[in-house]
Amino acid sequence: MTVDGSAVTGELVSSLRAALGEGAVLVEPSDMAGYSVDWRGLYQGRPLAVVRPSTVAQVAKVVRLCAEAGAPVVPQGGNTSMVGGATPSGTGTAVVLSLERLRQVRAVDPVEMTMTVEAGLTLRQAQAAAEAAGLLLPLSISSEGSAQIGGVLATNAGGNNTLRFGNARDLVLGLEVVLADGGVWDGLRHLHKDNTGYCLRQLFVGSEGTLGIITAAVLRLQPGITGRAAAFCALPSVEAALALLSRLRLRAPAGLHAFEYMSGASMGLVLRHIEGTQLPVSPADHYVLIDLAACADAGGLEPMLEGVLGEALEADEILDAALSRSEAQRLAFWHLREEHSEAQKRAGASIKNDVSVPVSQVPVLLRDAAAACEAAAPGLRVAPFGHLGDGNIHLNLIQPEGADPAAFLVQADALMQVVNEVVRGLGGSFSAEHGVGRLKTGLMEEWRGGVELRLMRGIKAALDPANRFNPGVIFPAP
Amino acid sequence: MTVDGSAVTGELVSSLRAALGEGAVLVEPSDMAGYSVDWRGLYQGRPLAVVRPSTVAQVAKVVRLCAEAGAPVVPQGGNTSMVGGATPSGTGTAVVLSLERLRQVRAVDPVEMTMTVEAGLTLRQAQAAAEAAGLLLPLSISSEGSAQIGGVLATNAGGNNTLRFGNARDLVLGLEVVLADGGVWDGLRHLHKDNTGYCLRQLFVGSEGTLGIITAAVLRLQPGITGRAAAFCALPSVEAALALLSRLRLRAPAGLHAFEYMSGASMGLVLRHIEGTQLPVSPADHYVLIDLAACADAGGLEPMLEGVLGEALEADEILDAALSRSEAQRLAFWHLREEHSEAQKRAGASIKNDVSVPVSQVPVLLRDAAAACEAAAPGLRVAPFGHLGDGNIHLNLIQPEGADPAAFLVQADALMQVVNEVVRGLGGSFSAEHGVGRLKTGLMEEWRGGVELRLMRGIKAALDPANRFNPGVIFPAP
Repeated sequence: MTVDGSAVTGELVSSLRAALGEGAVLVEPSDMAGYSVDWRGLYQGRPLAVVRPSTVAQVAKVVRLCAEAGAPVVPQGGNTSMVGGATPSGTGTAVVLSLERLRQVRAVDPVEMTMTVEAGLTLRQAQAAAEAAGLLLPLSISSEGSAQIGGVLATNAGGNNTLRFGNARDLVLGLEVVLADGGVWDGLRHLHKDNTGYCLRQLFVGSEGTLGIITAAVLRLQPGITGRAAAFCALPSVEAALALLSRLRLRAPAGLHAFEYMSGASMGLVLRHIEGTQLPVSPADHYVLIDLAACADAGGLEPMLEGVLGEALEADEILDAALSRSEAQRLAFWHLREEHSEAQKRAGASIKNDVSVPVSQVPVLLRDAAAACEAAAPGLRVAPFGHLGDGNIHLNLIQPEGADPAAFLVQADALMQVVNEVVRGLGGSFSAEHGVGRLKTGLMEEWRGGVELRLMRGIKAALDPANRFNPGVIFPAP
Repeated sequence: MTVDGSAVTGELVSSLRAALGEGAVLVEPSDMAGYSVDWRGLYQGRPLAVVRPSTVAQVAKVVRLCAEAGAPVVPQGGNTSMVGGATPSGTGTAVVLSLERLRQVRAVDPVEMTMTVEAGLTLRQAQAAAEAAGLLLPLSISSEGSAQIGGVLATNAGGNNTLRFGNARDLVLGLEVVLADGGVWDGLRHLHKDNTGYCLRQLFVGSEGTLGIITAAVLRLQPGITGRAAAFCALPSVEAALALLSRLRLRAPAGLHAFEYMSGASMGLVLRHIEGTQLPVSPADHYVLIDLAACADAGGLEPMLEGVLGEALEADEILDAALSRSEAQRLAFWHLREEHSEAQKRAGASIKNDVSVPVSQVPVLLRDAAAACEAAAPGLRVAPFGHLGDGNIHLNLIQPEGADPAAFLVQADALMQVVNEVVRGLGGSFSAEHGVGRLKTGLMEEWRGGVELRLMRGIKAALDPANRFNPGVIFPAP
């Protein structure tokens, strides 16, 4: 019954079972296995127990019982963190609190264009509930089939479509949160304007489970998409990509859903390693995928896009361009973008990152980081691609052709440091989308140290004085 | 030289002068008069001194000197608060820190579509700097000629145009803030994606000067407006207004800049009291002003609006509608919206409020609050108007025709309470736009008390443990 045999542990498990029922409390290692390791396999944790409450009241009860027993609580959603943000430590002392049973769509309001959903619903289920009402939940990430709303908000997820409607944070009108003392903050407001004190919801969004456990949220929705236009372009330079982005922003600000960059190096890997892929434009060193969407009168999008591309061609910002003439073609363009991760995997060992810089600094980032990495590890392949419109480029580094993967990966930390130094010099971020988790706490002191980390620590101490929520995440060990 | 003659005060003034120069430190009551009272004249404060630093370093120095002397600091921008949020107490102990000399436009970046501006720039000056680069700072409030960026952000200003681009909070990418210990948080990031710890900027935005002093900000810009379409409509009901809003949101989500409601009662006062006003539609009990804006291909807006209005007419959601055929006519429509405050003033004493409810609850609000107020004060005129698209209606109450204004105003608190009870029952807010300031601290315990106020007090204690920044604002006296 007890994991480490101590009386306290046994007592906590008993009281959790009494509160939630037998089936909601897992203690057998085999039952807990899926909750104990992050999906990338970077962190093998060992929880004291895994609990699966079904209601907000049960979540609050778990937090109170754990507080009394002095047990840390690790909230977990779909367990899709890229940075080990939802994995317990290996000490066997923490309780993993899975939100997976809180999966109600509490309301969808087409007049307000909001939905109220519980934390355990997957992002895809929430998207489907919005679609059923003819509306759009405008957030899309590759893990959306597994990632749950609570985790999506706790990590302020981003993705491909943030150019128009922002990150997860920008969609939140209200939250319900269980606090460290077991109290519940009912901040489930549906208000577009409310200036009554501090904006607490934005503090919990992105706090990676360290300040409170999000149990439900009110999200803004948008009208469903009724029309699209897309283009795949070959460009002479990254600077040209920025110029084209500016053109589009001025001409189609509302319709611009995605502006994705792909380097010639990374595209070459896709064409080589992904069967059946074909370039719809002449080969070049730089490509972008433009995706526009409209909610009505979509007829205007295509001529507009054609006009902008024509201007860009005349200005030598584009070498070649293909306009999608069908939804199938648009999806084919996206296929060429989405396969970069897979192609890179097939090309050998790679070092990934998740950096962002001010949009105008992307050309400098690509030039300087590539040069520095090539100097540090001759022969390595720099294969960047990503969300240019957000300044969020995946500046991935691939092993030299035919080299030993293990020998290359030994340099991972050093090469990451090389990239990070360039990013930092440009006022960028070492984690654009994935958060800090356990993986990147070591960078917080250097990047966000001093005043900023002191502010964060002060807030943490105010909201979770005993450091019970997700210890080891965000903050470096003192 | 000293205000209250104490040695401490004299020493503080001397050290402030040594740090900032003579002219930057005012102590004569006549020099301080404009900084000592809020513009509505609700609060007559008495500062120890008024200081006007010119740089961030000087702001930090002032905060440090005041901390050493134990003097509260009241940050002040354009002094346009509706709720006494920038006025010192009457004790003569606080230093008013005016940001008016920090008025640099540090940068405007057309590629990133951002601007970096200092706190003392007026909103209108910031708008002009964006316009000079062909861009739009999409925030507009009636006090924009005086209101300064620092105050606009510290109070999360809203206004008429939030339907499309949000409130002030939604425009902020980065902040520079002087903290209670005199440290400076340089959070002037230009990043669209950055998940490295807590979102501090959203904590300072809307904190009304109680957590830190905003000295500069990076704001998102939008493409300049190139085309408009507007309509003035007579409607059979508030429900019809919501149906029309839904139609527009689905058909013209990106172009919808404003959707302003005017009750027949309030419009009647405009037509009666404001010379030269004329209704462009048949008289009705409900009116809305629709304002669309586009940044390119504006030609599509008018036919689209005409189509939506035609559908709404057929669905009996509209009784009559006038489409603007010129910019002059559009401005004439707006004149009919903007004169409601002035017309109400001429109609006698009035009790104003700044409430918001979920958009779908506006019809209930108007019906129930009007009935309750009429029952409580027979003969009073309920004259609502406001930002329907935001659920933010100014549910103003006007004295009975010909009655004694003073006798009516005696009921102000009681009537406000009547409105607030209805708003609260609908999950609304007692301060949609203006903040809490000194005026509404009494409501915080009842509306945001318990868990929420405890969270806010915890954050306040963590960031400003000695309660030096704007004491008496937001929080009720313990």
